[in-house]
Amino acid sequence: MSALRVGIAGLGSVGANVFQLLKDNAGLISARAGRQLVVTAVSARDKSKKRGLDMAAVAWHDNPVAMADDPNVDVVVELMGGATGAAHDLVMKALQNGKAVVTANKALLSAQAAEIQKALAAGKGSIAYEAAVAGGIPAIKGLREGLAANNIQAVYGILNGTCNFILTEMRTTKRDFADVLKEAQDKGYAEADPTFDIDGIDASHKLSILSALAFGVLPDVSSIKTSGIRHITALDIEFADELGYRIKLLGIARQTAGGIEQSVEPCLVPKAAPIASVEGALNAVYINGDYSGKILLMGAGAGGKPTASAVVADIIDVARGHRLPLLAISPDRVSALKPADMRARKGSYYLRLIVLDQPGVIADVSAILRDEKVSLESVLQRGHAPEQPVPVILTTHGTEEGAIQRAVEKISKLKSVAAPPHLMRIETFE
Amino acid sequence: MSALRVGIAGLGSVGANVFQLLKDNAGLISARAGRQLVVTAVSARDKSKKRGLDMAAVAWHDNPVAMADDPNVDVVVELMGGATGAAHDLVMKALQNGKAVVTANKALLSAQAAEIQKALAAGKGSIAYEAAVAGGIPAIKGLREGLAANNIQAVYGILNGTCNFILTEMRTTKRDFADVLKEAQDKGYAEADPTFDIDGIDASHKLSILSALAFGVLPDVSSIKTSGIRHITALDIEFADELGYRIKLLGIARQTAGGIEQSVEPCLVPKAAPIASVEGALNAVYINGDYSGKILLMGAGAGGKPTASAVVADIIDVARGHRLPLLAISPDRVSALKPADMRARKGSYYLRLIVLDQPGVIADVSAILRDEKVSLESVLQRGHAPEQPVPVILTTHGTEEGAIQRAVEKISKLKSVAAPPHLMRIETFE
Repeated sequence: MSALRVGIAGLGSVGANVFQLLKDNAGLISARAGRQLVVTAVSARDKSKKRGLDMAAVAWHDNPVAMADDPNVDVVVELMGGATGAAHDLVMKALQNGKAVVTANKALLSAQAAEIQKALAAGKGSIAYEAAVAGGIPAIKGLREGLAANNIQAVYGILNGTCNFILTEMRTTKRDFADVLKEAQDKGYAEADPTFDIDGIDASHKLSILSALAFGVLPDVSSIKTSGIRHITALDIEFADELGYRIKLLGIARQTAGGIEQSVEPCLVPKAAPIASVEGALNAVYINGDYSGKILLMGAGAGGKPTASAVVADIIDVARGHRLPLLAISPDRVSALKPADMRARKGSYYLRLIVLDQPGVIADVSAILRDEKVSLESVLQRGHAPEQPVPVILTTHGTEEGAIQRAVEKISKLKSVAAPPHLMRIETFE
Repeated sequence: MSALRVGIAGLGSVGANVFQLLKDNAGLISARAGRQLVVTAVSARDKSKKRGLDMAAVAWHDNPVAMADDPNVDVVVELMGGATGAAHDLVMKALQNGKAVVTANKALLSAQAAEIQKALAAGKGSIAYEAAVAGGIPAIKGLREGLAANNIQAVYGILNGTCNFILTEMRTTKRDFADVLKEAQDKGYAEADPTFDIDGIDASHKLSILSALAFGVLPDVSSIKTSGIRHITALDIEFADELGYRIKLLGIARQTAGGIEQSVEPCLVPKAAPIASVEGALNAVYINGDYSGKILLMGAGAGGKPTASAVVADIIDVARGHRLPLLAISPDRVSALKPADMRARKGSYYLRLIVLDQPGVIADVSAILRDEKVSLESVLQRGHAPEQPVPVILTTHGTEEGAIQRAVEKISKLKSVAAPPHLMRIETFE
């Protein structure tokens, strides 16, 4: 069979590793793919940059979008990123031209799924995106193929390695958020502007894609309740540990009678749960199917080499002639996502209060919770310092999210409450 | 597209669940597969048995092998088991007739891979076997597709749910092996003749398939160093816990300069390792690729519903037109497995001795280990009972397997050693 000709747009860490991987494992890959995979074209911002790649036999495109018209390219690998601009234009044009597209671009997939689906229907192009979620972990393949027989009940996981690294460091070194973030930035594990990661936005893009595949709906980031890890303190991590939990930033999507629940937020998970052992920059994805039960997939969620592994797996699928609709379901069966009312979500909660150490405070707080029918499981107070602010940690039994939120709103207005309360979900995956 | 016609041979727990799953999720499955999946024929030992399945529209074959000639069957699903006999004949004949075969039969795949590969080359048939390893976990797909770009360094995991259940029960209830095995048999978690599971044979079949896919070689059970969990005592589990480990029956296949190392044996794994948190009847498969890094896949490794999920995933692949060579690599690139000399394998070890409590015993044991250049990491003795048998637990630093085995052989002959020594590998996955 003739060689499959690959064009790579974007030669950052992932792009350079895709180039190198296709060279390093060329013999193995051609034996597995049934044909040779040859890089015929590349594009990147700076042609003069030293990358240590042998690009003598490769066409260079100053304009990445031109790769969509290159007759020597069968598969366009888009690794530039961004929901708009050149990445968007290249992907759409390549699909119009009937090419196969492989991309790691979660923002684009999340925002433009409807448009991509339309372009796929109109032509002979195809698209694959294993690398867009959870880096080197074959989570997309697991969901859309491995568990294709299942009515998916829920999909959830640790989808952002930067946050998991920070939370792990905070726990193991007992330092506070700002301190660990700075170290992560100095070491290059976190961006100079870390907002995208630490506020849960990156994880929400990924969750929207998992959710779309799981439930056959268009991705809808706007309906995901999203919060990040900025407000987590060393104290939270210490108390969580004492109570038998670890804190993880989780993306969770669940099918319920009232619609699809979607959230990205820091949660307390039981220490004995396998997901609690997912530490450092690792990612993990749980898929709960009606027949399969809970399947956990875990591994490196980012990094040039693991992400390149996922990109090249997609290219090998193209070479093998395996292609699927965008959401792995007939496009006419894809519906709009019906979001659930998150206030009706049930669960247990962790509440950290900083209160003035004076008689009657716990009574006031308890009364407010009682009025909202929230039942307490535990109350922990650390230290004793009359009239000074001290931490009080409450955990609740199962309650409605709306009720605990109303209670927290009222509690925050008590005179004896010295700082904004911090509420986190306790997620036991039941 | 016309419906894909499915014949199911074997209506035990898995077969009945495949039948039911294709009915329960028919709408979803046809939307995902791009065509309808219809069961048109079945075969089982006893036609009169009540199964609660609506088989009005389905042809019954008394002889399962006849299904290979049924013109109304496109996909033959073989769920009878066994490396020879009807299962073998049905699979070979279906392949000769150009049909797609889906099977959960690890014994057949492990023993007859060369013959199956020949039949595939000669005709238009195809074969898929996700359900043969690790039940509902998409481990085969992860390995042969998700990580297809990687030079696989190692694949290992917990491949037998019965053993993992017994070991977990022994740990949590502090009971001995025989006691827990009996309970498992009474509850139907273990077979009346448990040899196949508890002596590691089932796991070795599964490992041989993973190994074959990982390294592009024919499965070779005979080269797997296999031992089971019969000799593990409550004491071992207690000492392992004290030393920071859990005991798991692991299947391990590693690529080394000297060939492929393959073993199925109980190992001590660090408590903090994610694989230590795989408890009860769950299975887990680790795949370590040169680009992907370590990927862990975990979930239900057996049971009618999870296994049916894997079987139907394979049928959906057939419906989608996705097929691969038997070992996911061009048959002309498949080689015979070159086994490594296991005596040259490096690692740390745990050694349980029952010795007479008298002066000089530890000195004798230590001298033997020193002579074999095995360096001790720790020595634990429990209790003091002059001239009576007491347990002594030794752990070693990294050593060659051959050296520790020779030492154990000599130690077992000491007069003061009151029972056969029990040696287990400490596996840290480095």
